[in-house]
Amino acid sequence: MEVKHNIPTGSLELKEVIEKKGTKMTFRPDIKVMDCTLRDGGLINNFRFSDQLVKSLYQACIDSGVDYMELGYKSSKKIFSISDFGSLKFCSEEDISRIIGDNISSNLKLSVMADTGRTDYHEDIPKKSESIIDMIRVAAYAHQIPAAIEIIKDAHDKGYETTINIMAVSNVMESELNEALEILSLTEVNIIYLVDSFGAFYSEEIRDLAYKYLSYARDAGKKIGIHTHNNQQLAYANTLEALILGVSYLDATFSGLGRGAGNCPIELLLGFLKNPKYNLRPVLKFIQEYINPLKEELSWGFDIPYMLTGQLNVHPKSAMCFLDSNDKKNLIKFYDYLTEEG
Amino acid sequence: MEVKHNIPTGSLELKEVIEKKGTKMTFRPDIKVMDCTLRDGGLINNFRFSDQLVKSLYQACIDSGVDYMELGYKSSKKIFSISDFGSLKFCSEEDISRIIGDNISSNLKLSVMADTGRTDYHEDIPKKSESIIDMIRVAAYAHQIPAAIEIIKDAHDKGYETTINIMAVSNVMESELNEALEILSLTEVNIIYLVDSFGAFYSEEIRDLAYKYLSYARDAGKKIGIHTHNNQQLAYANTLEALILGVSYLDATFSGLGRGAGNCPIELLLGFLKNPKYNLRPVLKFIQEYINPLKEELSWGFDIPYMLTGQLNVHPKSAMCFLDSNDKKNLIKFYDYLTEEG
Repeated sequence: MEVKHNIPTGSLELKEVIEKKGTKMTFRPDIKVMDCTLRDGGLINNFRFSDQLVKSLYQACIDSGVDYMELGYKSSKKIFSISDFGSLKFCSEEDISRIIGDNISSNLKLSVMADTGRTDYHEDIPKKSESIIDMIRVAAYAHQIPAAIEIIKDAHDKGYETTINIMAVSNVMESELNEALEILSLTEVNIIYLVDSFGAFYSEEIRDLAYKYLSYARDAGKKIGIHTHNNQQLAYANTLEALILGVSYLDATFSGLGRGAGNCPIELLLGFLKNPKYNLRPVLKFIQEYINPLKEELSWGFDIPYMLTGQLNVHPKSAMCFLDSNDKKNLIKFYDYLTEEG
Repeated sequence: MEVKHNIPTGSLELKEVIEKKGTKMTFRPDIKVMDCTLRDGGLINNFRFSDQLVKSLYQACIDSGVDYMELGYKSSKKIFSISDFGSLKFCSEEDISRIIGDNISSNLKLSVMADTGRTDYHEDIPKKSESIIDMIRVAAYAHQIPAAIEIIKDAHDKGYETTINIMAVSNVMESELNEALEILSLTEVNIIYLVDSFGAFYSEEIRDLAYKYLSYARDAGKKIGIHTHNNQQLAYANTLEALILGVSYLDATFSGLGRGAGNCPIELLLGFLKNPKYNLRPVLKFIQEYINPLKEELSWGFDIPYMLTGQLNVHPKSAMCFLDSNDKKNLIKFYDYLTEEG
């Protein structure tokens, strides 16, 4: 492979990038806000959202100027039983159209996620001309990149915008990540996502990674996105950090709804963005009417067990398990369990 | 006044400051962690903490390697009735000694806050030789700086370390702030605090202000501290931002306990700091035993009404009032109230 990249490491490039950012009185038209409320939130309730909630969220996204709305997954019905999940686990064209109509008259684009190894994309993703979906986002761990590239190619050939979301990069060796980015920059994928699956990154790490991703993207004519988790109360701060450095696709969810500590709250992000097309009021209205009532049955957001898995850069599943147990008030027990030898 | 300051504005100074920061494998011995749990938390329960809680927090601070513990205020008994508040509103030597002993055998330093205009410092602050308090922190709005300087001089002459905490700087004109910093740099105050009273600052604003403060401090031989509020989930992120730029006194509270959206959570901060003298486990133990039970009676931390006052850069008192009202679920009503004309 002969591709060469200029990965910035010195302060000259830093200066250059920092000077690229907007000011308080301008906005960057390249910014796209991606609502992932149903997709990441579905991970905590098996996608059992009422049609009324989905329909209202769709309208709230349109009214607030959000650019993309992610509805859920394109999951394989051979792997997952439809009786165990709500319809957004599978996102069939029929179900989506039934709930939100044809999406012809809005500027809101729709996306679904295809999880590498758990999607029958050949079978379940029709041609774009037969779908109201605009974008296929492909989620993959680093070792799944070859399989992910096949899904990207298929989706691209069918006419969709595509992203690759490389998960859990805080646990990936730098050389492996470099190779993944190099290979991906040769594909037709439109957007490469920096994903902090474990909520483990500090702003300096986001900065270094954003440089790296942006450098590959610049050379390959792609855009970079960011998806954060709030384990260390840094989901929003790290999204801003990436945004300032030139990352342009920003994932967020209403009230941070999402697995474990949740995601970057969209109400914080829209409060920051200066583009007058964004509007906070419809977001607050949806939170008041639909998200706050959900808090009586679902649990998400910053909590010390999630903080600990983030600080230790491990998957939050042990924290989720702990918070579901009778020991959930015994923080010390969980701390000792996480930090014990061997 | 002939004092001249080099306020860095260009990217060369930025580079210089950024290169000053530590690395992942080093720590900065100049960092001091200041626990403000009782002082800022006392604002939401009128300082009605049990002696047992105060004593246990004192021990937790010692065990976790925290550098300073702020006990409360030195408030005037002519202005505030002792029957309306717990003893830490006044922090008499007798009360403090009764609760925590003589503090001779620990490395933990103790501080109290003197609120400009609401303290009888001549009368209520004894000489350091007669006190177990080590530091007097003077809180003042910009227009109170002349009065604050008198308290600083008195405390310094009595033998205390001193800080000045200029409050609500997000609402202070830059020329006024420059003048305040210039005047303060001529006093004997040891540490000047950057205070985000309204939780209104983004990281870029923290960066610009930290430069400014550090520039005055460098020329005058003083240190800079930071005190944040979590209205926009940026209390911790902004504390890290300031830390990286050279700010060395870091305010934090257990579980972020503090007025409104609360403060920078000390458990997040200690999880980041690399100095092996800091220890997270005693912090978690105290949270488990004392802070989490407090959540049944007290309310603090991020909430959308506080987010809105932070985004709009106004005092959180309207959000506190709203959250105490029968309308507290009606976010739209509060949003419309805050954003209406006139």
